[in-house]
Amino acid sequence: MTTEFDSNLRLSLYYVHSLQDQPLTPFMSTMSLYAKPNGSATTTAVEKDLLSSVHSELQASRLNLSLPLPSVLKSSFNVVDGPPSSAAGNPEKIAQLFPNVFGQSSAKLVPGSGSAVENKSLKIGVVLSGGQAPGGHNVISGIFDYLQERAKGSKLYGFKSGPAGIMKCKYVELSAEFIYPYRNQGGFDMICSGRDKIETPEQFKQAEDTAKKLDLDGLVVIGGDDSNTNACLLAENFRSKNMKTKVIGCPKTIDGDLKCKEVPTSFGFDTACKIYAEVIGNVMTDASSTGKYYHFIRLMGRAASHITLECALQTHPNIAIIGEEMAAKRLTLKKVTDYITDVICKRSEVGYNYGVILLPEGLIDFIPEVQQLIAQLNEILAHDVVDEAGMWKKKLQSQSQELFELLPKAIQKQLMLERDPHGNVQVAKIETERMLIEMVETELDKRKQKGAYKGQFTARSHFFGYEGRCGLPTNFDANYCYALGYAAGALLQYGKTGLISSVGNLGAPVEEWTVGGTALTSLMDVERRHGKFKPVIKKAMVELEGAPFKKFASLRDEWTLKNRYLSPGPIQFFGPKANDINHTLKLELGAQA
Amino acid sequence: MTTEFDSNLRLSLYYVHSLQDQPLTPFMSTMSLYAKPNGSATTTAVEKDLLSSVHSELQASRLNLSLPLPSVLKSSFNVVDGPPSSAAGNPEKIAQLFPNVFGQSSAKLVPGSGSAVENKSLKIGVVLSGGQAPGGHNVISGIFDYLQERAKGSKLYGFKSGPAGIMKCKYVELSAEFIYPYRNQGGFDMICSGRDKIETPEQFKQAEDTAKKLDLDGLVVIGGDDSNTNACLLAENFRSKNMKTKVIGCPKTIDGDLKCKEVPTSFGFDTACKIYAEVIGNVMTDASSTGKYYHFIRLMGRAASHITLECALQTHPNIAIIGEEMAAKRLTLKKVTDYITDVICKRSEVGYNYGVILLPEGLIDFIPEVQQLIAQLNEILAHDVVDEAGMWKKKLQSQSQELFELLPKAIQKQLMLERDPHGNVQVAKIETERMLIEMVETELDKRKQKGAYKGQFTARSHFFGYEGRCGLPTNFDANYCYALGYAAGALLQYGKTGLISSVGNLGAPVEEWTVGGTALTSLMDVERRHGKFKPVIKKAMVELEGAPFKKFASLRDEWTLKNRYLSPGPIQFFGPKANDINHTLKLELGAQA
Repeated sequence: MTTEFDSNLRLSLYYVHSLQDQPLTPFMSTMSLYAKPNGSATTTAVEKDLLSSVHSELQASRLNLSLPLPSVLKSSFNVVDGPPSSAAGNPEKIAQLFPNVFGQSSAKLVPGSGSAVENKSLKIGVVLSGGQAPGGHNVISGIFDYLQERAKGSKLYGFKSGPAGIMKCKYVELSAEFIYPYRNQGGFDMICSGRDKIETPEQFKQAEDTAKKLDLDGLVVIGGDDSNTNACLLAENFRSKNMKTKVIGCPKTIDGDLKCKEVPTSFGFDTACKIYAEVIGNVMTDASSTGKYYHFIRLMGRAASHITLECALQTHPNIAIIGEEMAAKRLTLKKVTDYITDVICKRSEVGYNYGVILLPEGLIDFIPEVQQLIAQLNEILAHDVVDEAGMWKKKLQSQSQELFELLPKAIQKQLMLERDPHGNVQVAKIETERMLIEMVETELDKRKQKGAYKGQFTARSHFFGYEGRCGLPTNFDANYCYALGYAAGALLQYGKTGLISSVGNLGAPVEEWTVGGTALTSLMDVERRHGKFKPVIKKAMVELEGAPFKKFASLRDEWTLKNRYLSPGPIQFFGPKANDINHTLKLELGAQA
Repeated sequence: MTTEFDSNLRLSLYYVHSLQDQPLTPFMSTMSLYAKPNGSATTTAVEKDLLSSVHSELQASRLNLSLPLPSVLKSSFNVVDGPPSSAAGNPEKIAQLFPNVFGQSSAKLVPGSGSAVENKSLKIGVVLSGGQAPGGHNVISGIFDYLQERAKGSKLYGFKSGPAGIMKCKYVELSAEFIYPYRNQGGFDMICSGRDKIETPEQFKQAEDTAKKLDLDGLVVIGGDDSNTNACLLAENFRSKNMKTKVIGCPKTIDGDLKCKEVPTSFGFDTACKIYAEVIGNVMTDASSTGKYYHFIRLMGRAASHITLECALQTHPNIAIIGEEMAAKRLTLKKVTDYITDVICKRSEVGYNYGVILLPEGLIDFIPEVQQLIAQLNEILAHDVVDEAGMWKKKLQSQSQELFELLPKAIQKQLMLERDPHGNVQVAKIETERMLIEMVETELDKRKQKGAYKGQFTARSHFFGYEGRCGLPTNFDANYCYALGYAAGALLQYGKTGLISSVGNLGAPVEEWTVGGTALTSLMDVERRHGKFKPVIKKAMVELEGAPFKKFASLRDEWTLKNRYLSPGPIQFFGPKANDINHTLKLELGAQA
């Protein structure tokens, strides 16, 4: 990670005044500029140029949105504690690992007379952790606005480039002017993110030093499952040292695999899926207009297949492979190949030599036999000589040997040669969609020779990933994130720690959303790693008994042969449907539309 | 091309009535359904299901748009002829090739008392030819509505799957009910398209037979440069046989390379570029948030680089390669690689180890030395033995030999092995973005060893193509296409032939757009092929002296080192900027915004 925070594009606006030769507060000029009517005589050409070099017109139009808040956050509230919590698994082990924060109640904000704490000013830090997700900037705006409105005189520090910023005490003090250009914008470029973890005793010491140096009352960690586990460890550590610094997590990941009853979804999932569904829908219309291509589309989501499932519900592809189902049914790569090939043959018989197939990024991870092959290869390559004649292959177990021979040459080579610094196969680098195309092609050739297939097969591969992580957040993600941030501010002011900001009742209008915090330990289980128990927030996988998968399963046979493609089109920020939530969330909330 | 027209998704609505057990006209049910208020008690569950299996909510919301027409088309008009026309080159040869239609005047529609012909009913055919472009359905709707409103009792036939539909006389009679579900929708799936050409005397005979069989007064050919050339040959042929069938072309191609003074743009370019710019902008925000990837993005546009140029103007990448500039400066692949590598090194020095680079699909086609190498390889592979030791390489000329050695192994292999049925290299299959990544990586390694580069280089490759050809047309493309179609109807009614539908003054509100037709021969030049002169509409390449390129050239140095990324966001159909036109068109129209 070499990002430097000050490499940031929008920060160049800081230097507006140097060009304007006026003693302006840097961002104040920006704010007032955007507030000016278009073409106002007082907007100089230089100002205009600078503005249009930072935001597109649509981006600019999102800056001044007045976001709705859940009604409980709009006036005085009290914080009510629920019953004590347990853990997602192995509560006694979690209790041992978190003696100071285990068992905490969920907190719920309810309308009330408020409390004296509401007027206390706070010093809060905030950090973005892990991969980008649309809406992160709104969480920060939410915290900031809470502090401005409910805890006057507070300070908000943004740690730069993820947890490393905490450890190195690299931060920026966030002001209204600083935050303004990022309001309702995609990306994490306001303070950037990072993938470092605070793990060793030395690193925890560094975090303590930073908290003390900045006199932090609280820290908000915006991240996925790992980052929220880390947030809880920090909360435990700070409390064990009798430090005043509290820690609150916020659920972020486009993959949608950090959720539970009280945290119905992670932010970014809604926007990312809608962006992917837009381009998938366009490709579908192209497929049925052109009539000659099979599009194999790989989508982000390595651990869980929520994105693929949601995009399938939005667009109705001919095939969507759900990793969790493959794992549950212990499907082999051969079986998956045969399934796809069967569908292609059947479609060809009814005159369709085209189609759209969705695949999750983590497909390979879900296939037990591939994992075995990789493990055996790792062993052999670490200890044995790989001879040209291929005698080494005899050291593979027979199932792995068969699988290896089945794989396209390019993938074989990738498995043999491309290793990470630890000598392991870089599974993420394997282009599953291209691999499957080759395998399907080989199988179709065989069937053609036997006369069992008479169609034409031409494939196109796509990977949709980076397109979706930093788009302009949908109205839902913009509102949800703002409420998450605002709630995090409230929880910190009420002295809560080790909770994840929880905003619920998301099927209702924003005003009716519920607000509170959930004990992070209640989401945890333990895993055994290197002979030690490690706490982990279990990833929320696609549930085969859950409403989204069941809906998909009930419809997919029809999608296979009859084309039922839907093209959702580009995300709209205006109009009657602009606030609609995604199918997964809607179905999980029980509102079977 | 194996598309069967009736394989079409939306046509399944034809069978609505069979499920409903009611004697409804198939599409009438659809029309009335969409017109019903949401959730109306008279909409059955079956109906709802069928509708939502055809259109997404956004698609449905576009169906009932009332499109604005240029005011000249809103009431009676007269058609005024301008001065005789010439050709784009070699007028005497074009005159020989088109003795019956050469030299025709441009036609212009002006407000007037109208003419007796306006009440005459017509029989018209329409065909989609070549690759998909957003808006094609609106051209057809425009023709249809013209006939309905101005030539009552007319018939419109849609030829299926492109020019082959004309030759085989495969068509569908288009009705209001049939067209309705495609109004303002992307794709060509209403009647599908094809890439066949009407070339041989037998094929012209087939076209004549079809025109006679259907008693056609006119034919509208919706296509790119080749298809419009073909349209003109048909016009010439029909007139030479004293047939009554007239032919009008319409300018279609996302590539934007069919345009001239009277035809300021081809339809689809606006939508496609905006879709590509949306995802490029998202990738840019990701790049600056993540800070560790160079994104190499290849964009459609093989012959001309208009798409890359337009996307650059919309998004401000660090580098955009414009093929026409490469060709003009006779840049070698090595020089392009060095240029990119230089930028990466310089950016690394100021702390940026990330960036976004746009490449046109046709990059390789623009490099003379690559063309030479391919020609020599074709010769050698056709006639010589390729020995393992590589002695055959000595048969390459020295420049080609050097270039070959410079290429990544995978590309070398592709050049040697992957041939089309005629034994030629499949240039379109070469993934330029991956090739350049490898070449840049090799060059950076060299510099690293010399100590001239200390950064980190990790690249991601993208190809954005199919995502953009079939999106929902922007308001501009929807309106432009509708006017093009409406105008084509008018031109046919006034007995015009061999013209291309021309709608101008596109920078003004739709009401002020001008409407007319331009002699197709005036766009033509000749090329010598197989010892014969062939008429061709010259592709409109990026002009290095044109306003769009000059604007790009004046800004690109700043974009290279200082990040000036712009993220245009998803196309909006509502709101104040929803009708904005693309930069290329705006700049070419002289409205330097």
